[in-house]
Amino acid sequence: MLLLHRAVVLRLQQACRLKSIPSRICIQACSTNDSFQPQRPSLTFSGDNSSTQGWRVMGTLLGLGAVLAYQDHRCRAAQESTHIYTKEEVSSHTSPETGIWVTLGSEVFDVTEFVDLHPGGPSKLMLAAGGPLEPFWALYAVHNQSHVRELLAQYKIGELNPEDKVAPTVETSDPYADDPVRHPALKVNSQRPFNAEPPPELLTENYITPNPIFFTRNHLPVPNLDPDTYRLHVVGAPGGQSLSLSLDDLHNFPRYEITVTLQCAGNRRSEMTQVKEVKGLEWRTGAISTARWAGARLCDVLAQAGHQLCETEAHVCFEGLDSDPTGTAYGASIPLARAMDPEAEVLLAYEMNGQPLPRDHGFPVRVVVPGVVGARHVKWLGRVSVQPEESYSHWQRRDYKGFSPSVDWDTVDFDSAPSIQELPVQSAITEPRDGETVESGEVTIKGYAWSGGGRAVIRVDVSLDGGLTWQVAKLDGEEQRPRKAWAWCLWQLKAPVPPGQKELNIVCKAVDDGYNVQPDTVAPIWNLRGVLSNAWHRVHVYVSP
Amino acid sequence: MLLLHRAVVLRLQQACRLKSIPSRICIQACSTNDSFQPQRPSLTFSGDNSSTQGWRVMGTLLGLGAVLAYQDHRCRAAQESTHIYTKEEVSSHTSPETGIWVTLGSEVFDVTEFVDLHPGGPSKLMLAAGGPLEPFWALYAVHNQSHVRELLAQYKIGELNPEDKVAPTVETSDPYADDPVRHPALKVNSQRPFNAEPPPELLTENYITPNPIFFTRNHLPVPNLDPDTYRLHVVGAPGGQSLSLSLDDLHNFPRYEITVTLQCAGNRRSEMTQVKEVKGLEWRTGAISTARWAGARLCDVLAQAGHQLCETEAHVCFEGLDSDPTGTAYGASIPLARAMDPEAEVLLAYEMNGQPLPRDHGFPVRVVVPGVVGARHVKWLGRVSVQPEESYSHWQRRDYKGFSPSVDWDTVDFDSAPSIQELPVQSAITEPRDGETVESGEVTIKGYAWSGGGRAVIRVDVSLDGGLTWQVAKLDGEEQRPRKAWAWCLWQLKAPVPPGQKELNIVCKAVDDGYNVQPDTVAPIWNLRGVLSNAWHRVHVYVSP
Repeated sequence: MLLLHRAVVLRLQQACRLKSIPSRICIQACSTNDSFQPQRPSLTFSGDNSSTQGWRVMGTLLGLGAVLAYQDHRCRAAQESTHIYTKEEVSSHTSPETGIWVTLGSEVFDVTEFVDLHPGGPSKLMLAAGGPLEPFWALYAVHNQSHVRELLAQYKIGELNPEDKVAPTVETSDPYADDPVRHPALKVNSQRPFNAEPPPELLTENYITPNPIFFTRNHLPVPNLDPDTYRLHVVGAPGGQSLSLSLDDLHNFPRYEITVTLQCAGNRRSEMTQVKEVKGLEWRTGAISTARWAGARLCDVLAQAGHQLCETEAHVCFEGLDSDPTGTAYGASIPLARAMDPEAEVLLAYEMNGQPLPRDHGFPVRVVVPGVVGARHVKWLGRVSVQPEESYSHWQRRDYKGFSPSVDWDTVDFDSAPSIQELPVQSAITEPRDGETVESGEVTIKGYAWSGGGRAVIRVDVSLDGGLTWQVAKLDGEEQRPRKAWAWCLWQLKAPVPPGQKELNIVCKAVDDGYNVQPDTVAPIWNLRGVLSNAWHRVHVYVSP
Repeated sequence: MLLLHRAVVLRLQQACRLKSIPSRICIQACSTNDSFQPQRPSLTFSGDNSSTQGWRVMGTLLGLGAVLAYQDHRCRAAQESTHIYTKEEVSSHTSPETGIWVTLGSEVFDVTEFVDLHPGGPSKLMLAAGGPLEPFWALYAVHNQSHVRELLAQYKIGELNPEDKVAPTVETSDPYADDPVRHPALKVNSQRPFNAEPPPELLTENYITPNPIFFTRNHLPVPNLDPDTYRLHVVGAPGGQSLSLSLDDLHNFPRYEITVTLQCAGNRRSEMTQVKEVKGLEWRTGAISTARWAGARLCDVLAQAGHQLCETEAHVCFEGLDSDPTGTAYGASIPLARAMDPEAEVLLAYEMNGQPLPRDHGFPVRVVVPGVVGARHVKWLGRVSVQPEESYSHWQRRDYKGFSPSVDWDTVDFDSAPSIQELPVQSAITEPRDGETVESGEVTIKGYAWSGGGRAVIRVDVSLDGGLTWQVAKLDGEEQRPRKAWAWCLWQLKAPVPPGQKELNIVCKAVDDGYNVQPDTVAPIWNLRGVLSNAWHRVHVYVSP
């Protein structure tokens, strides 16, 4: 049987070499008699038309790259001889040795050669090996675009046996169908999972970001949790006791309330993309927001479970109640020393700006780790444990790390870099916007500045001439407590526009109380995941005559 | 006179070519009447036998090479005609053109031909040119071996004038008259007060900087304190008691020992001067050094005086026993929160690299504040008090602060900036040196990297092309403890020199575990005091054809 398959594949490959059918024609041919309806992707998979719009940006990143890379790929499907495969046959093709097959609707594809080229990484595509793509496309909706389907069509090798159409083992239900309704002001970088940022002009309108436009960074569908039955499981220390805490139980711990800025590691990634392609969502300057969080202190909860600070390095691992189709939950960890330090003020938060957490922000309970990258502020918190090692979560060990600009996907060694915890000093201009025309006379420049680790922002320098000369901006916002400056500064500079100036190259850079500064340019801090993008922020504007 | 010397040298060289005396015999002849006692080197030079042990590793590196390379070297000393030279004559021989002379005990050697063969590199031997070898041999005890002395004997050209042993002519009225004798390898930026740095090629020779070449930053004359009558006054808390601690009392507190890098805020100031004039000493890359410090913990001493951490911000003020002509002592302060935090490991140090503090480094007691700018590590400590405000010392309030490049001496408002405490991430290249010519084929680049606040250095990127492309250096040194990485990394990169390349623009930049990076260029961080100079370090070298 295996030999037969190989023979078929070989024949198809030969056919491809002989023919030179433009892929467009080929796709149309391939797409006939297709149970997958390319014209209505979102209906088929998501039941949500509006969502297609938001995928555009991710499409640019992932899909477009795929098209560019493979646009000259030739159709290898032999339309004249449709081969029929059973589901069982398909399911036996899950490795490079046997060939890697997947199905979409009734079509069968051999993607063996494509796996290593998958923009999302081989491992993600391999999750679908031997079975249907639908559940994964539903999760990563970026795939539902015509150029992705065109690409796939080139790998078609036949059809599924119609009699073999077992009732779909995958639920038709869209895992994102139950995601909450979002504020239309949000600039969506990805619908599924939902990732969106407030537009700059709203971002610094308020020191405290209103909940509906607080940037949202989800890795998976939003779980719908019942606050009455919700329990937080805290694994007890040896000699201590494990806890199963209801929301009421958490409220019975002393309540703490702090203002904390959260920033995604990928904030301002779009500027890195301009240097060279990176893997990740195209965040502009808005993957940062500030809220007033209330909750129990993690150190109090851990203490009740019998934990205490130990001499050896240990880590507090968090698991979310959001999970992927394989049941893997989002997870992350922070050092126990930070978790147990009352001065670090790590919260198990149940309130955001005086309200129960919105679903997108972790209802009913999330972790808030002041001064630390957003990825560790685990939402929909289900489980807390203390371990000798960092979380084994993908997002702790194989993501959210920084590398040298010289490291690419062929050479990257994720074990060689520490997981991002504290973030470096950051600032950005929110007004005026790039390309805008400003009045002559005087220009008002606004923005935000923040640093990780509780380091206060002590100064923001602004330049109108690309960095040749600088002026000091006025800082606004809540008082920055020493060593506990968890929240950003908003800043403003009113500066005369030099007479006769037709354009301005506005630049900002911040300094924190460790006198850390932002680097001048993006290229030298470029990294393959596009994280830690904190070079000077630059905005080019025109001056009205 | 110079001609005469040359004639003598020439004659000696000829003598060597004619004779074929086995070096062993020659050395014995040379070694007679030698005030240097080769059998007891450590007694002669360091007064510390134990310290020699630590240099053994270097011995393997440098000394052994010397023997292997020069074991067949012939004696050129003409025993029959002892020439007498004055110190002045010797000191005028410091270049290949004049000849390179050194002395050991009463003997004078012309090492012109040996310089390029020196196993430790020519530049290291050149540090002693025109003067005595003893201070360098004391530093690198590998030299105190018979085969090294044998080798040296072959270059003997005469004796020092016995009448030339002048008594030091320092006026008694000079407040600096009593300053200690310093190591001649130090590059002196200011004699009074004494400020000096080790040359780069010595700086990263050892992970632990030997005491004699540890950079010295004095603000005032060095006090000469009697350890028997020394007392440290610690002002008691309300309800507590003031302490008057002898050195023995301090030794009775639990002893802690930690490796800590100290860096002057002005390190690398000379690069800022190149942008625009600044006020301050012209430190190059050497205002940074690392030692193993031992002492009592400040928090233990403060606790005994009744101090505890309070809710309101407070500061621990230190006063030195050095003072200016008006009687004003050097002073500085750190936040009480840092002082009282056992994890911050602030020491009242009485030992440096296993020895009592050298006078230049605060004998008998100095403060060591890990992760914090050198200026707060008050030396010759006389008084400790807890105050609601920072120290009113000039050096706390009117110095050691950072400002925008736009601020000049007319506009500066010292109250507008916080005093420097933690320093930002730093790195520099120590080999090769700027302007040097390196071999084609492969270049070895060495340097140091460090960050403030206990943040570990996680990566050093090195570029050979001015920052267009980067390679990751190999990091060496003690393990960097999480949150307590008080000491530097040494780093190294062996990189192929691109064929045909005539010049290299070598650049380094470090990243710490808060993912802070160094800024690309100096001008945007320029400030009127020339502090916090941590832009990428750049070295331009030529490639030998």
